[in-house]
Amino acid sequence: MLLKPKQKLVFIGDSVTDCDRAKPHGEGLFQALGNGYVSIVDAFLQSSYPELGIRVVNKGTSGNTVRDLTDRWEEDVIEQKPDWLSVMIGINDVWRQYDSPMQIEQHVYIEEYKDKLTELVVRSRKNTENIVLMTPFFIEPNNQDAMRNTMDQYGEVVKAIANEHDCIFVNTQEAFNKVLEDLYPASIAWDRVHPNQTGHAVLAKAFLRAIEFDWQK
Amino acid sequence: MLLKPKQKLVFIGDSVTDCDRAKPHGEGLFQALGNGYVSIVDAFLQSSYPELGIRVVNKGTSGNTVRDLTDRWEEDVIEQKPDWLSVMIGINDVWRQYDSPMQIEQHVYIEEYKDKLTELVVRSRKNTENIVLMTPFFIEPNNQDAMRNTMDQYGEVVKAIANEHDCIFVNTQEAFNKVLEDLYPASIAWDRVHPNQTGHAVLAKAFLRAIEFDWQK
Amino acid sequence: MLLKPKQKLVFIGDSVTDCDRAKPHGEGLFQALGNGYVSIVDAFLQSSYPELGIRVVNKGTSGNTVRDLTDRWEEDVIEQKPDWLSVMIGINDVWRQYDSPMQIEQHVYIEEYKDKLTELVVRSRKNTENIVLMTPFFIEPNNQDAMRNTMDQYGEVVKAIANEHDCIFVNTQEAFNKVLEDLYPASIAWDRVHPNQTGHAVLAKAFLRAIEFDWQK
Amino acid sequence: MLLKPKQKLVFIGDSVTDCDRAKPHGEGLFQALGNGYVSIVDAFLQSSYPELGIRVVNKGTSGNTVRDLTDRWEEDVIEQKPDWLSVMIGINDVWRQYDSPMQIEQHVYIEEYKDKLTELVVRSRKNTENIVLMTPFFIEPNNQDAMRNTMDQYGEVVKAIANEHDCIFVNTQEAFNKVLEDLYPASIAWDRVHPNQTGHAVLAKAFLRAIEFDWQK
Amino acid sequence: MLLKPKQKLVFIGDSVTDCDRAKPHGEGLFQALGNGYVSIVDAFLQSSYPELGIRVVNKGTSGNTVRDLTDRWEEDVIEQKPDWLSVMIGINDVWRQYDSPMQIEQHVYIEEYKDKLTELVVRSRKNTENIVLMTPFFIEPNNQDAMRNTMDQYGEVVKAIANEHDCIFVNTQEAFNKVLEDLYPASIAWDRVHPNQTGHAVLAKAFLRAIEFDWQK
Amino acid sequence: MLLKPKQKLVFIGDSVTDCDRAKPHGEGLFQALGNGYVSIVDAFLQSSYPELGIRVVNKGTSGNTVRDLTDRWEEDVIEQKPDWLSVMIGINDVWRQYDSPMQIEQHVYIEEYKDKLTELVVRSRKNTENIVLMTPFFIEPNNQDAMRNTMDQYGEVVKAIANEHDCIFVNTQEAFNKVLEDLYPASIAWDRVHPNQTGHAVLAKAFLRAIEFDWQK
Amino acid sequence: MLLKPKQKLVFIGDSVTDCDRAKPHGEGLFQALGNGYVSIVDAFLQSSYPELGIRVVNKGTSGNTVRDLTDRWEEDVIEQKPDWLSVMIGINDVWRQYDSPMQIEQHVYIEEYKDKLTELVVRSRKNTENIVLMTPFFIEPNNQDAMRNTMDQYGEVVKAIANEHDCIFVNTQEAFNKVLEDLYPASIAWDRVHPNQTGHAVLAKAFLRAIEFDWQK
Amino acid sequence: MLLKPKQKLVFIGDSVTDCDRAKPHGEGLFQALGNGYVSIVDAFLQSSYPELGIRVVNKGTSGNTVRDLTDRWEEDVIEQKPDWLSVMIGINDVWRQYDSPMQIEQHVYIEEYKDKLTELVVRSRKNTENIVLMTPFFIEPNNQDAMRNTMDQYGEVVKAIANEHDCIFVNTQEAFNKVLEDLYPASIAWDRVHPNQTGHAVLAKAFLRAIEFDWQK
Repeated sequence: MLLKPKQKLVFIGDSVTDCDRAKPHGEGLFQALGNGYVSIVDAFLQSSYPELGIRVVNKGTSGNTVRDLTDRWEEDVIEQKPDWLSVMIGINDVWRQYDSPMQIEQHVYIEEYKDKLTELVVRSRKNTENIVLMTPFFIEPNNQDAMRNTMDQYGEVVKAIANEHDCIFVNTQEAFNKVLEDLYPASIAWDRVHPNQTGHAVLAKAFLRAIEFDWQK
Repeated sequence: MLLKPKQKLVFIGDSVTDCDRAKPHGEGLFQALGNGYVSIVDAFLQSSYPELGIRVVNKGTSGNTVRDLTDRWEEDVIEQKPDWLSVMIGINDVWRQYDSPMQIEQHVYIEEYKDKLTELVVRSRKNTENIVLMTPFFIEPNNQDAMRNTMDQYGEVVKAIANEHDCIFVNTQEAFNKVLEDLYPASIAWDRVHPNQTGHAVLAKAFLRAIEFDWQK
Repeated sequence: MLLKPKQKLVFIGDSVTDCDRAKPHGEGLFQALGNGYVSIVDAFLQSSYPELGIRVVNKGTSGNTVRDLTDRWEEDVIEQKPDWLSVMIGINDVWRQYDSPMQIEQHVYIEEYKDKLTELVVRSRKNTENIVLMTPFFIEPNNQDAMRNTMDQYGEVVKAIANEHDCIFVNTQEAFNKVLEDLYPASIAWDRVHPNQTGHAVLAKAFLRAIEFDWQK
Repeated sequence: MLLKPKQKLVFIGDSVTDCDRAKPHGEGLFQALGNGYVSIVDAFLQSSYPELGIRVVNKGTSGNTVRDLTDRWEEDVIEQKPDWLSVMIGINDVWRQYDSPMQIEQHVYIEEYKDKLTELVVRSRKNTENIVLMTPFFIEPNNQDAMRNTMDQYGEVVKAIANEHDCIFVNTQEAFNKVLEDLYPASIAWDRVHPNQTGHAVLAKAFLRAIEFDWQK
Repeated sequence: MLLKPKQKLVFIGDSVTDCDRAKPHGEGLFQALGNGYVSIVDAFLQSSYPELGIRVVNKGTSGNTVRDLTDRWEEDVIEQKPDWLSVMIGINDVWRQYDSPMQIEQHVYIEEYKDKLTELVVRSRKNTENIVLMTPFFIEPNNQDAMRNTMDQYGEVVKAIANEHDCIFVNTQEAFNKVLEDLYPASIAWDRVHPNQTGHAVLAKAFLRAIEFDWQK
Repeated sequence: MLLKPKQKLVFIGDSVTDCDRAKPHGEGLFQALGNGYVSIVDAFLQSSYPELGIRVVNKGTSGNTVRDLTDRWEEDVIEQKPDWLSVMIGINDVWRQYDSPMQIEQHVYIEEYKDKLTELVVRSRKNTENIVLMTPFFIEPNNQDAMRNTMDQYGEVVKAIANEHDCIFVNTQEAFNKVLEDLYPASIAWDRVHPNQTGHAVLAKAFLRAIEFDWQK
Repeated sequence: MLLKPKQKLVFIGDSVTDCDRAKPHGEGLFQALGNGYVSIVDAFLQSSYPELGIRVVNKGTSGNTVRDLTDRWEEDVIEQKPDWLSVMIGINDVWRQYDSPMQIEQHVYIEEYKDKLTELVVRSRKNTENIVLMTPFFIEPNNQDAMRNTMDQYGEVVKAIANEHDCIFVNTQEAFNKVLEDLYPASIAWDRVHPNQTGHAVLAKAFLRAIEFDWQK
Repeated sequence: MLLKPKQKLVFIGDSVTDCDRAKPHGEGLFQALGNGYVSIVDAFLQSSYPELGIRVVNKGTSGNTVRDLTDRWEEDVIEQKPDWLSVMIGINDVWRQYDSPMQIEQHVYIEEYKDKLTELVVRSRKNTENIVLMTPFFIEPNNQDAMRNTMDQYGEVVKAIANEHDCIFVNTQEAFNKVLEDLYPASIAWDRVHPNQTGHAVLAKAFLRAIEFDWQK
């Protein structure tokens, strides 16, 4: 288990991270962490390692792209002074290219995505020792599908940045691919993006394995 | 892992099981299993064993005592023809004795509790191969507390029935006790009964261990 | 234009037909026909052929399969005594096999689908001169996708019944395929089933062409 | 078909254009274009010419007169940089003279109407190649009716401006008159102003014909 | 003033009478008489003749035709044992012919209207000494308008029945015509049927004059 | 009839005047004048004198005392430039002394009342030819009742100001007293302040008589 | 203190007793006793005599007269088997005579009131040892007021029945009269019937004194 | 009785004081004092001493700690110029340490609590003659419970400040302890903090005794 006593872990991302968390600050009582993978991660951390006193904060916001993260990085990440930071962004960057093809000002193409995400990692590197980068994903098993194909390329960008900047890398698309061998996408997410609890368990397990969570504890 | 392909697993109980599940039938899309331990159990079963096609149904109802279960056992349990059945009941049987001391017709004392729960197990034994009995619990570390003390006695009854009728036994109180060594009750449940996600993770893990779930899968 | 003065045209189907129509009777003022393709068909009939006095009724109901149509055929179709009847059913018959794979009692497999739909056509043949059969569809361009593939087979069943029973046949999947050469599915329907107005225009145009609507009128 | 690939088409007007569009910007997913003629026009453009990628924006606002358009022309029209602009205004300019005769500050008389509308066309002419001017209308067949009579005069003003400034002219009153030969006004609009879908189809068809839409495509 | 101490006056009719009255019984405190002409009549009776103790009951129901009155005449009129009865019906009988021309089962043509209204008057004649028949109306000054023309014919029927059966006759159309010399219909009722308070004052004054109300009292 | 063609009549006061009028401006369609005496006055003016085109505006605000009127007199009265102005204020000035005896900062005692009301009349005198002053009232027949007694004194102040400043005087208390000879207060107003429609008719008739309204017209 | 350990005390009456209690059964957690005098009585009994375990039930229902109590006496009183019963009824019996003078079928005159209340006491006498009769009241200091005068007569009836049938008598009017020497009615109840918390304290104290509650305990 | 005629009594504190009081000012009609102990105290003061005209104001705010009081002391206490001030604060200062152990910025430890509370008393001492300090409490009978133990220490601080600064001291914990000898905590407060009416009666009685309220009056 990589987390140390009293450490603070901040999650940031889009609607998959948000999941109806408390606003403006996603921390504390009354399901403030939302009802997605962040909540599952926290529940397992607290119940398996109650002695550690890990502090989990959810800063995901629905509809965000990497541009939106850039706008709020100072307030929502830097000022939080996290010991651990987990970033999962890019789904909307890609999705808008496919569901709103004419509204091009909403598209974040791959070069901009790469530049902005790199910049965010660099900015946080100074104060945050541990950064986890999770790929965006599309719950579609056909990798010839146009949007899945683009999403895979954005995932490659995440992988490259993680390697270069010494982050922990979590390949969420790969985690979903394994489940999609047995399950059709519609049983996890009607729109192939917003997962039900099964999909959030896929994400939570991928994250917990990456931080070497001990399931037997 | 004790569950076999295509098996059906029914949960029954009170508000801790219910957790805003779909009514009248707690199964299927759109968070129909509620947002408590049943949902976590299902999410881990589906994401770790997608090839099994396990079918999970939530039949918990808020406020129920063992008397209420008796009234609806035929329709909500027998007619479901479950391969696996999990029962967690007794919290309200005890709680009403402490929060509504004058309304004695709402109290279910320990002899009636034992008789009725035994009868339910016997009725289901004919058609259901696997029965899991989970103890009721009170998220209070002081075992000299009057209500905690009573709850422990009801837990002993559950244990005895499980032994006698060859059920899998899950000691939820014990699972909570371990966490309570480090956490104060109010951080898990303001009323010491309805847990937050941390508490539901305690319950889900206790159940999953009992069915020999493989966390590495 | 095949419709004659004062004729009555009844549409029946699932949520794609329903589109929030008035209940229990979808006819008349205040957007009673819903906001989908039925409404567009009616608006074009009334505005282009006001002298005909065509009467349009929407009897679609969300979530329906061919089983549900069978249950309400007498009241919702036969008793309406339509001159024209349009049926589009089958999406939920297929979808439940893919989004709820364990709840097999909700699946309507192809043999049952064929038998029930044939029976409905035969029952209405006696009193209704003109029957239009529209295929179910899945807004997915990849015909190797499992659900699209199944949907195509159900579409073939519809075609065969139309041929055998002298109905007008509308291939909605083909109509969507043409549009999907230029548009990604997410721009028409996030869940690839419930279309936006563009998708409903695809359906309305396919229907209007089948009844030889004169666009220049 | 007069529209070219990737062109942007902006509609502006009053409640007949608005029809519950998204605010502040009427474009994109989730029925953002409202449920009136703009939505029908868009649905036919996208479904018949998906390869063109036409971008449609709805800037109609309920209750507006030509005065209100003047106030928001810079932000809602000029800044949009449309290739095509469609304007339908004047109903409220006239209506207030008849339903609120004492509140004269709400009346926009014909001279002011002519001046302001001319000014708007002139302002947009510099940047927008194609301007469509649609007349206001009153769904009343009796042209001796006082309000209908006034509305006809405003329609004449629109025609004159269109001629002078080389705009495409759409005579919506004429389009309604044809339908009113067979239908009583109350079957299209209870208040003779806000049409149902039949009335919006009249408007959409008149617009689509003006831009030489190919119905056979 | 024709009303005597302690007499009971029942109004029956459609939405113009109903005006959001209390259901099922329109009498008593808290604006139970609705907000239309019935309420104005009652307010003037009570404030000018407080010593009489007149009892006013509103039994109007939105959407009613003479057919609906027939169905509920026993319960809503006969059982009330009114000393005075006021009937204003027929607007919907005519309106449906014009706003829903294809739904002919909703039309009440003039012969049926005459027969049914006559029958109702005859049934009430035995127990109710004073019957007031008010014509239906259409707030449209052009008597060549198709619906206005039909409404006038129904008004003639009411007049004939009143003469033959010795009822007090109130010509509401005539009362509105006088006001329409100066006011355009839209300033009284957007749909030319449901009046604002000015229109209800027209109706209330016509009724009060018919019962020889003393305005100077 | 004292009002002349095209004149504007503004009512100002407290909740008895307000009666849920449109905010911020109480004029025009959709019951903007509220549902109290102002609405009745307007309805009778428009229906009996449609040729005059009288413009009625309601500026009553619930809970107001003469202090509140002073604060908003410029905007709500002077800027309206009324030809006629009707003021009814004072109920809350007195009522707070009786229902909130300890909150003395909410009490407006008789000297302040007299000074402020006089000042308002003087300010409006310059631009408004016709001012109607209506007394406050308390629907209590016992003039020895403490609050009724105080209200009578405020009414005397109103009378004196009207005399001195040449205003039309309306004694609403006297109008109510006449009705209270036959009706118990609870049948007009449960709290003896907010009247039902009978009470509002009392007020409307008193006002209409003061302006020499011709009831026979 | 007259109440003994484990005794059950049932309150019945109208809206003053009801005060938004839980329906159908007014007992237990979550403010089930409503927010009036019954709740205050219970709170003082439980906090001063926690060792007694007194059980309090609220069966008041808004709008009730003694007729309504008669209809539900078996179910709401007899079946409850109370050791103590408190009845306060009559306000609506009198009030309807004054606020709805023409609706005479809603009036319960004094003879009927006396007969019905006597009958209820007799029926309960067999099973209930202790009966408290509270007078109805009217928060009006002027005993020449018509409604107050009538209410006093009903109070006399209550007194007579209490004497004859050996009940504890509580004169609520007298209790209010004392307070009304210093407070104007509007500061306790705007409608002189439904008291605020001060008025409910008056009622609670009168009741508690009648059962010899020890305030020093 | 220590309070004198016309004195003003202000209560300040957290949710136990707040109890849904009117915002921003908790005084006057319509249950503005909330539904907790403040309302009971006021109701008894007004009903037993109506001649005194005591003015009670509730300034409690849910969730407040002594830090929040410091922030709003000037506006909510000093500017009120109370003759009497009652302060009950500290529950949240302690609770957050136990229900949100990781969010340390929300914890108010005992030194800060002592300093801030002392400062507030000193600031008010100049203008307010009478100050009542009520201890915070925890409705838990086990004084070895961690949170109860901490709360007792904060109570000791209150006692010391009261002694030093000549305030009236109310030991609410002691008042609850007495009741807890007979009642289990859950019957007073499910979360052991927010009491039902029984608990608020405990608080109100403790306060009233401290000000030498005469229960026999």
